[in-house]
Order: sequence, then structure tokens, then C-alpha cells
Amino acid sequence: MTNTLRITGATRLYAIVGDPIVQVRSPEVFTERFAAAGVNAVLVPAHVPAERFDEVIPALMALGNLDGLLVTVPFKARMLPFASRLGPAAACIGAVNALRREADGSWTGDMFDGAGFVGGIEGKGARIRGRRVLQFGAGGAGSAIAYALAGAGVESIRIVEPDSGRVEALTESLRNAFPDCDVAAATSKRTDVDMVVNASPVGMRPGDGMPGDIGALAADVLVGDVVVSESPTALIQHAIRHGCVWVNGRDMHSGQVEALMGFFASRLSPVGGMDSR
Amino acid sequence: MTNTLRITGATRLYAIVGDPIVQVRSPEVFTERFAAAGVNAVLVPAHVPAERFDEVIPALMALGNLDGLLVTVPFKARMLPFASRLGPAAACIGAVNALRREADGSWTGDMFDGAGFVGGIEGKGARIRGRRVLQFGAGGAGSAIAYALAGAGVESIRIVEPDSGRVEALTESLRNAFPDCDVAAATSKRTDVDMVVNASPVGMRPGDGMPGDIGALAADVLVGDVVVSESPTALIQHAIRHGCVWVNGRDMHSGQVEALMGFFASRLSPVGGMDSR
Repeated sequence: MTNTLRITGATRLYAIVGDPIVQVRSPEVFTERFAAAGVNAVLVPAHVPAERFDEVIPALMALGNLDGLLVTVPFKARMLPFASRLGPAAACIGAVNALRREADGSWTGDMFDGAGFVGGIEGKGARIRGRRVLQFGAGGAGSAIAYALAGAGVESIRIVEPDSGRVEALTESLRNAFPDCDVAAATSKRTDVDMVVNASPVGMRPGDGMPGDIGALAADVLVGDVVVSESPTALIQHAIRHGCVWVNGRDMHSGQVEALMGFFASRLSPVGGMDSR
Repeated sequence: MTNTLRITGATRLYAIVGDPIVQVRSPEVFTERFAAAGVNAVLVPAHVPAERFDEVIPALMALGNLDGLLVTVPFKARMLPFASRLGPAAACIGAVNALRREADGSWTGDMFDGAGFVGGIEGKGARIRGRRVLQFGAGGAGSAIAYALAGAGVESIRIVEPDSGRVEALTESLRNAFPDCDVAAATSKRTDVDMVVNASPVGMRPGDGMPGDIGALAADVLVGDVVVSESPTALIQHAIRHGCVWVNGRDMHSGQVEALMGFFASRLSPVGGMDSR
């Protein structure tokens, strides 16, 4: 079979849901991967208007030939109750970025953003274990990244997030899951850190500045920014100026493609999670 | 642009809804046509379980990047109330096999099965005007075909259909729309006809026989069968034995591809129809 894509009546569907949707790259990436694997499946963009999310998602999941969903902004937390069961990352942070239909028709959800972020950093040859992290943002992506960083053995995470309820919930979850990792809320002012992560929306709009006041950086500081943008964000430009190793939103997404292909391929394989309802 | 298909975040979606869905050929046909026209769009199969139809359809239509729907068995009549307005064929026969989203977000529905059937016959060089038709079945496809045949100037249509309410409704609609065409219910016994159409489900299952008792055929009798099947139905075999010109379900579908491409391409162009609600 060549990479030339044919869609037939028997083609299995995967969709990425988001609002907006035109910016996503998963349809291209996964449709090519399915074709390369000889699987008759495509991944299509599905623009779900946020105000109709709760009505549209169960209907999409009712399609008999839909086998999986990817979830992007702003739906990763809202998707949680639609999973029949959760993998450990999703259960800890309360957000889902991928669901697969099992052979019995139930849906397993898990969160791969954090693993993708860690994978992206490791792909650049940097070490994560023992780092002291300053992170901006404790939303869906931020929670996933903090979970994966704690799982990868960072020493501490300081989280800057205007929503105090959100940051408290995350710090409590992380302390329970990773008692050896020192997690706490922080102010925007930089403390003594050797890794800076932006998981806030700052940088998504042209003209956005830095997510916070971090000052000059030593060259051994790791910098990550979840924002996917055409030109480098202010934070990534800052990292480049100081000679730091950095990853951006695109690296985070590429970093999870293998994991997601495995997740979609293995139906009802144990994910070590718990039932969400 | 080559015919190599890429799906991106900006790809516009079309879907064909049916239950079952694996047998449909539209995804292949239309996805190739879109690519050949340089349009970033795909048509995907959507298997909508019949019991969840009323919930799934509005959700699909809520997707911001879904521009059109094709409708197959068993949903052509059930789809009618989901159109904001109807073309003339759909309004007359009460069934829809295609919908497009207009620029204002409303949905126009129309029925192309009948035009496809007539186009398939004309593609084989046969004349339709003046024919006396015996037709089996007055469901969605049967109604569409009878409407198109009357519009193409047949002299009479005799309709064999076990559901008497259904056949009465169709004959009344057709008499109103085409006062010059002599339309009536009939028994299975062949009357004096020079065109035989099967629009009933007979022939869909392997081992099915003829849709009715039509006896031997003169070679100038036209034969049509809406059934899409791997091997010729008993009726088409009968037509072949008697040297008749015939069309099958596949011809009917190919016969409407051009019309459907035009329908999808022209947003808010006048379709001469009426509001359905």
C-alpha cells in the first residue's frame, strides 16, 4: 500500500475536537501514520463550538465507526466525564487529551500532553531528573506537564497561576501522587530555578510578552513553552538569547505521537487507571 | 495539486450518514472529486445507529467545519425536518439525500436519487419520455425515482407497494406536481408497460428473487433496479436475458455525482424550493 489515501465506506474515523480547530496538525500527522501502517483510518478535524460541547461529544461517540478522539483547547477538562475509565495521568490531573473506543464499546481516556513534553525535552538530550521548575499555568496542559515532570523526577515545582483554586487542586493531587516532589504555588517573581515552563495562554496572541518576570537565564536552564505559534514566543526568544535548551508546543505534540499511536492500537490493554464513573 | 490527499486542521468535512455504512462508495468518489477540484475537503462515512439518529444529526450539523451531508438508508425521510429549506424534489416526496450548509448557517436539503436514476438511463442512450412505468416500492428511493420519471415526461406510473398509506401519499403528491402524468397504485401483476423499476428492498439479500411477477420482457422495455449489489439482482439478470437496456443502483449513484458536486459548490443559490419549517 502506498501513502496515497483513499477513504471508503469501511474507513474507520478518528477526530480531533477543539474550538477553534484550523490550527491543529494531528489530522495530517495521524492520517499519514495510519496510511503508513496500512490501516484504513483517517483522523479528521472536528470544530465543536464550545457552547454545544456537551451535546456534540456524546453524539460523536455514538458514531459506530468512530474509534478514537483527540482533544484540544478548550475541552481537555470538560472531556473527562465522557470517558468510561481513565489512565493514571488523566485521573490525577482531571483532564483528557485522547480517548479510544474499546471492543466492548466503552471509552478509555488518558492524557499524553505531559509525556509528550517530557519526550520532547529528552529528544533534545537534556536531563530532567532533579530540576527545580518554575511553571506558569495550571490549566489542562499545565497540569499534564507538572504531572509528567514530577513523574520524571524533578526536585520541585513552583506554580504561578492566577486561579488559586486551580493551583491548590493541582498541588494537592501532585503531592498525593508524588510525595517526594516539592510542589507549591508561587508568585510570578522568579525564584531559584533551573527549568522554566510556560503552560499559560500567554504567547498565543501576536504581541504577547513574557508569561512572567524571570530575568536573565543561565545557559543550563531548560525552557519549555506549550504555545504553538508560527514565530517563536517571547519566552522562547529569551531562551535562545541566553543559549538555553528549549522545547515548544510543536515539540510537545510530536513527542506524543508514538505514545498516542500505541494507545489507539491497543484496545482494552490495561492502562492502570481507575473508573471515572 | 496532485490527487494525493492531505487532511489538515483547515480541511472541510462532508459526511455520508447511514446504518449500516460500510457499503457506501461516496467517500471515495467525492474525496477524489474534491481533490481533483483543488478543494481542501473530504467526505467521510459516518455510521449513525438508527436509534440515536435524532440526537446525532443535530450534533453533526453543529460541527463548525462540516459543510454538507449525504444521506443513505434508512434515513432519507427522517432527515427531512433537519433541513431549513427544501429543493423541489425533496419537498414533493418528503425525503432528502443531500444537505449543504449555507453561508448563514442554515441547511438546504434536496433529493438527487431520482435525477441520478434518470441520468443513469439517459447515459445508456435510452429515451424516457412517454414510457408507461411499472414500479415496485414507494419508499425514499421509489418516491424520488417516480418524481424524476414524472418530471422526465413518462406517460404513466403504476406503483406496487404493500404500504397503502405510503403509495396513496406518493400518488397524490405526484398528481399535484405533474397533472399530465397518470399515476396510480397497482398490483404486482404486470400490466401493459414498457419500463420496469424496482425501488423495493427485494434483491438486497443474496437469494432474493424478482420483486414481482413481470413475465417475459420485450427487448425495448427499460429496466431499472436501485439495489446496489456485487452480482446482478434477479431483475437485472432477467433484463439481460431479454436483451433490455438496464441500470442498477450503482448507475443511479454515479448519475448524480455531477449534480451533487454542483449542489455542494453553490451556496444559497436558488433551488426553487420552499421552507420546510
